[in-house]
Amino acid sequence: MRVVDLIRKKRDAGELTREEINFLIAGFTRGEIPDYQMAAWAMAVVLRGMTRAELAALTEAMLHSGEVLDLSSLRGPKVDKHSTGGVGDKTSLVIAPVVAAAGLYVPMISGRGLGHTGGTLDKLESIPGFNVNLSLADFHRVLETCGCALIGQTPEIAPADKSLYALRDVTGTVESPYLICASIMSKKLAEGIDALVLDVKTGSGAFMKSEKDAAYLAELMVETGVRMGKKVIALLTDMDQPLGRYVGSALEIEECVDVLRGEGAGDLRELCLELAAWMFYLGGTSKTIAAGKKLAEQMISSGRALEKFREIIRLQGGNPRVLDDTRLLPQAKNKVDVAGTRSGYVAAIQCEQVGVAGMVLGGGREKKEDSIDPAVGLLLHKKVGDAVKTGEPICTLYYNSDSRLDEARRLVELSYRIEAAPPQRLRPLIHCVIGANVV
Amino acid sequence: MRVVDLIRKKRDAGELTREEINFLIAGFTRGEIPDYQMAAWAMAVVLRGMTRAELAALTEAMLHSGEVLDLSSLRGPKVDKHSTGGVGDKTSLVIAPVVAAAGLYVPMISGRGLGHTGGTLDKLESIPGFNVNLSLADFHRVLETCGCALIGQTPEIAPADKSLYALRDVTGTVESPYLICASIMSKKLAEGIDALVLDVKTGSGAFMKSEKDAAYLAELMVETGVRMGKKVIALLTDMDQPLGRYVGSALEIEECVDVLRGEGAGDLRELCLELAAWMFYLGGTSKTIAAGKKLAEQMISSGRALEKFREIIRLQGGNPRVLDDTRLLPQAKNKVDVAGTRSGYVAAIQCEQVGVAGMVLGGGREKKEDSIDPAVGLLLHKKVGDAVKTGEPICTLYYNSDSRLDEARRLVELSYRIEAAPPQRLRPLIHCVIGANVV
Repeated sequence: MRVVDLIRKKRDAGELTREEINFLIAGFTRGEIPDYQMAAWAMAVVLRGMTRAELAALTEAMLHSGEVLDLSSLRGPKVDKHSTGGVGDKTSLVIAPVVAAAGLYVPMISGRGLGHTGGTLDKLESIPGFNVNLSLADFHRVLETCGCALIGQTPEIAPADKSLYALRDVTGTVESPYLICASIMSKKLAEGIDALVLDVKTGSGAFMKSEKDAAYLAELMVETGVRMGKKVIALLTDMDQPLGRYVGSALEIEECVDVLRGEGAGDLRELCLELAAWMFYLGGTSKTIAAGKKLAEQMISSGRALEKFREIIRLQGGNPRVLDDTRLLPQAKNKVDVAGTRSGYVAAIQCEQVGVAGMVLGGGREKKEDSIDPAVGLLLHKKVGDAVKTGEPICTLYYNSDSRLDEARRLVELSYRIEAAPPQRLRPLIHCVIGANVV
Repeated sequence: MRVVDLIRKKRDAGELTREEINFLIAGFTRGEIPDYQMAAWAMAVVLRGMTRAELAALTEAMLHSGEVLDLSSLRGPKVDKHSTGGVGDKTSLVIAPVVAAAGLYVPMISGRGLGHTGGTLDKLESIPGFNVNLSLADFHRVLETCGCALIGQTPEIAPADKSLYALRDVTGTVESPYLICASIMSKKLAEGIDALVLDVKTGSGAFMKSEKDAAYLAELMVETGVRMGKKVIALLTDMDQPLGRYVGSALEIEECVDVLRGEGAGDLRELCLELAAWMFYLGGTSKTIAAGKKLAEQMISSGRALEKFREIIRLQGGNPRVLDDTRLLPQAKNKVDVAGTRSGYVAAIQCEQVGVAGMVLGGGREKKEDSIDPAVGLLLHKKVGDAVKTGEPICTLYYNSDSRLDEARRLVELSYRIEAAPPQRLRPLIHCVIGANVV
């Protein structure tokens, strides 16, 4: 078998066999197939696509390029949630404790923020002492002790994905639903879970801007997971404006604590309840989504979810007192309001621009090597549909350096579209559920 | 400017600016842009194509990645010919002396055989002592002395092409008319010529099997050359059976000597006269193609072309006595006939298979590092349209090792299609001339 022949086959829109894909991924993982051949193959995949059989083979090859966790010693359903990423998308930090508090296992391997989006690991690291770099043995131990552990991808988990992702990032081959699906699913399936709820974002702040693209990716992921014997469901959810009101690592932890205290309301709480309900449903704990939602609400109102979060933080080396006093989280030195430029109603918020504003303040990475400032971010006072008066604050910027403050302010100003009349139609928070029939 | 953005632009079928292409090629030549990014870009070009402006920019960037010969000190037209390659395609060895004998300069930078095709350099090297690796200074000196010099690509000529070609070979990105055009034209334009005749092969032994693909490549090359102020014409010529009767380095030299002695006939002589005539016409020596053909015939019948070849061989270190006694060329130890399996007429010869048979006998390379045996090859006794009787030799194989003799014999047997009736239509030797209106 020659790599160049496999590249040519894909280039000419052919279908690679399972054996051929295994050869490619195994050789690449061992460092025997050079980056330039993988890059050419990846570009051919971006432009030619893959069949479902190829996608399944690729996902499995990447999954088996490393270790697959064996959680069989843990009695009880193991469920996880994965989001394709957005702005202010912080549901994992609420859901993981809520679901674990109800007795399910949540072995969550998360990522960092990329581009205009935030990442669970960065947010957790804003909690003083919190260690996301546990070994797999420690991950297993924390999971066993409290039902939940939150870590980053270890070298043992899907190493083929790690190498391929880095290569895709610099060769313009990120944007393939097939490669995205294989990347996500190989990592998630390595967690040893029984069920997975996918939160696929769509809208101006998502990577998949169009609903069609998001739905296609969701279908691919659900089908791939189901093929491999897992219960998988995908919710297509709105990312046409930031989720919740806060954007920025420590600020988002603060907002999550509010929700876990039962104080939060709005879209963030609603989406957390919905996603947790599906996890309960797939895990077999609740017979209906409505019952699952009720259970999630109980975990919050009883304080059990907050206590579970405290336990997780403590077991992963963090300072649990941040839950009682969020001023123990990194605080930005300065803040400034951005005022509405006219009176009316917020018709739309260009969501990616808000994310970029957060990045410009120092809260995100432009390159992978960049470090981030956990204290900075934004508080949105106005969301789509809200009434605004000229000069009234629509947003507060939290910052430590004013080197790019004007740029951030301008991005926020430009991202708000204010019109005289209230919007006729508001986008739903949950667009649809994909894969409900396969559960 | 970021390389990844340029790759993405091409991936999404965008048009790169001249500045962007210069950035890409200059960075790659300096070793600053890694192979994996160039491979991804090349695959995007294969699948998305290029505009004519992009192609012109790419060709110029590759041309100017190295030295462009300045032949202005030589008084008289400088013309060259380039063939896209085929089986038994040996016209350069006849044409170069014919055209130089008439007083034109022929600065010919040639290639080696690749895959099933032979290359001018390999054939020349079968002449004992012949040195194709002249420095550019020596190239200039030989050219000045006798009007013609035949060498390989030097490190100074289009280094970007050299690196990109090697990369394309292993990443499935050879088959793009744009990349092929830029590769050929950047090298040919570096020769400092005024005019170029392109021999674009089409048929079962060519790289471009279909006439449509061959014509498209021809148009691209003509247009690119004309844009850069050169007189360029392309002949689409037949490669649906080997050209002439011999295939193999030394055997082809022998056949060329026959033609230069005025003894050869058939398609090889005819194509040589036609190509030389176009070179005379573009060089301004002949007013019509008919007159150019007559001039070429005179160069042969007068013996001047043969004497010119003698001079070239001598100046490039070879033994000119091979022209008087071709037994001084490497001779295969053994030969064996392949007999016709039925009586009738040759309806077709699968030309690539004949080339592969020559390669299998040791006359070609499967990998670039392979060395070749200059003595081995084939003599075709029967060509398309010829009558055959069962058991009559259709081909003689010349070989030194019988390790793969059976494979070669079988390839030849299978490549001949013999039918009861003579073929109704024979393909013309010259399918068409492209770019005649731009001369």
